[in-house]
Amino acid sequence: MKQFNIQHTDKSMADAIQQKIDHLNKPKGSLGRLEELALQICLIQQTLTPSLNHPCHLLLGGDHGIEREGVSVSPREVTWQQMINFTRGGGGVNMFCRQHGFKLRIVDTGVDYDLSNVEGIIDRKIARGTRNFLHEPAMSQEEFDRAIQTGCDLVDDCIAEGCQELCVGEMGIANTSPSSIWMSLFGNIPLDECIGAGAGLDSPGIQHKCEVLAQSLKHYNETMENTTENAIRYFGGFEMVTAIGAMLRGAEKHLVVMVDGFIMTACAIAAIQLYPAAQDYMIFTHCGDESGHKRMLDIVHAKPILNLGLRLGEGTGALCAYPIIDSAVRMINEINNFDTAHITKYF
Amino acid sequence: MKQFNIQHTDKSMADAIQQKIDHLNKPKGSLGRLEELALQICLIQQTLTPSLNHPCHLLLGGDHGIEREGVSVSPREVTWQQMINFTRGGGGVNMFCRQHGFKLRIVDTGVDYDLSNVEGIIDRKIARGTRNFLHEPAMSQEEFDRAIQTGCDLVDDCIAEGCQELCVGEMGIANTSPSSIWMSLFGNIPLDECIGAGAGLDSPGIQHKCEVLAQSLKHYNETMENTTENAIRYFGGFEMVTAIGAMLRGAEKHLVVMVDGFIMTACAIAAIQLYPAAQDYMIFTHCGDESGHKRMLDIVHAKPILNLGLRLGEGTGALCAYPIIDSAVRMINEINNFDTAHITKYF
Repeated sequence: MKQFNIQHTDKSMADAIQQKIDHLNKPKGSLGRLEELALQICLIQQTLTPSLNHPCHLLLGGDHGIEREGVSVSPREVTWQQMINFTRGGGGVNMFCRQHGFKLRIVDTGVDYDLSNVEGIIDRKIARGTRNFLHEPAMSQEEFDRAIQTGCDLVDDCIAEGCQELCVGEMGIANTSPSSIWMSLFGNIPLDECIGAGAGLDSPGIQHKCEVLAQSLKHYNETMENTTENAIRYFGGFEMVTAIGAMLRGAEKHLVVMVDGFIMTACAIAAIQLYPAAQDYMIFTHCGDESGHKRMLDIVHAKPILNLGLRLGEGTGALCAYPIIDSAVRMINEINNFDTAHITKYF
Repeated sequence: MKQFNIQHTDKSMADAIQQKIDHLNKPKGSLGRLEELALQICLIQQTLTPSLNHPCHLLLGGDHGIEREGVSVSPREVTWQQMINFTRGGGGVNMFCRQHGFKLRIVDTGVDYDLSNVEGIIDRKIARGTRNFLHEPAMSQEEFDRAIQTGCDLVDDCIAEGCQELCVGEMGIANTSPSSIWMSLFGNIPLDECIGAGAGLDSPGIQHKCEVLAQSLKHYNETMENTTENAIRYFGGFEMVTAIGAMLRGAEKHLVVMVDGFIMTACAIAAIQLYPAAQDYMIFTHCGDESGHKRMLDIVHAKPILNLGLRLGEGTGALCAYPIIDSAVRMINEINNFDTAHITKYF
């Protein structure tokens, strides 16, 4: 696959940044998590005066062959219906993007429906859905490479507009299934502990999902060498692999990369498996309701900002957390220090 | 004391509100806490299309006689220094108010310094600090009544501008001390389990604070009948009693009342002790670091929105949570439903 040049953030500025934070006019440490976020963002941007100009949200849509096995409560047509709905502004993702000033790019990476004439959808379709990984790899090597490159290209378009902060969300019926398998493989966690209700399966539905995914994983192990890249290609959706490409390009280009819920966390963990340094650029925004999301976050020792029980997808958890990241940046730029505030420093 | 007419929110609309939320274009319940917040705000405003116009932040300052006993790491002069600093825009509270479009009112309710000529500070000073509750009630009945009325008047000023959402914060060196005592009295929790480090006490400092507060509580119990009003008057700061008045007036006038950290939660619990229905109008925004804050929230079964380790005060935890409350309102107003979105409803 395409190679990325992703380095850990340079920590030589860390002391100077921490000193600035500690000297802000407030008890030391009293802005808690905001202070940690400010440090991380300063390190990403290698500055004492960070900024979050032109935040962009990539909403990536794709369908999944595994949906044919009845692993999701929703039929696959919901993917294209929602994609069209997003162009009309009525989805959760639209509401959050308007609220927080994100430029929204709605991208068809592999929806099983012809959306090429729908205004407002960027056509980067790789195929009409992936193949069914119960029987065969979800995508070919060439499709995998295209998906990674698509993520890069989309991020480069954002950067060309001055984007400093990237958010990635997804729309793809059945995409909790590959996420659960990645969680199991990359986190070394028994598969049945990685499977949840998705958008609303009942108990027998979850049981069926467990059986289908266990069978798929068995077949994968019998037919493929288990490498990170193979696992991504065998199970991933086009929207998910594109997301991995976008996250890696974002890290390479020193963007702040906001990671959303269960599915995007699975993609982030896949990206970190490929390039561990990529995690330095990621902010884990939200711990959703999907069973195992907290455990998945634990794999990379990530501490999410929010815990609001969101499980809508589309990147909405990340967008919901954005103002807190913005607060962290404003904190270090706007709060004055003990000298300029003429306050007795009290510790 | 002044009487308030505070009724529980009328729940007869609850089914209609929930139905609207459930029919929004998203899996049922998938916006988690936002859905609960939307329901609460709709009930407060008795509408299916809520709004949060002209949010106002009251920043109330006051000094405490108990500070003379060395219960705080900071000297009392920090109260007036910070009050002046807030007029210059460099405090944490200023940053958050700018970020989220809150009108900030900085009010001197009892600072031990002449601030009457400082532009940007509203002069409602009741006295130059409370008396020392180690030996005597912090305030007289007349001062208590004035503080409650001051809270009402400030809220009425906000309402006159069209305010629908009220946030209250405080600046008062040593005000975790009365908060701990109220927590103990109103929550029926042993005093030493209610006392923390405030803005940064070390272990011997906390031990000293425990002894001073235990002695104060003993003296109170020996000299006063333990009623809610007596406990508030005996230990409270002017900024705290003003906050209680503001919260009660906010509830009476059907405002959304945002409750901040340890000190403002203590005030909220005092207000709820006086008028249990007031809680229907309160949103508990944040669980801070101060030892016992979570236990204090448990007294009223409150589930905070954020848990970011903030302990700055000034109302900053509440302001930090505001965009999430705003998201809840936007959700019910802006996300379309399954009919208008042309999506197959999938459960």
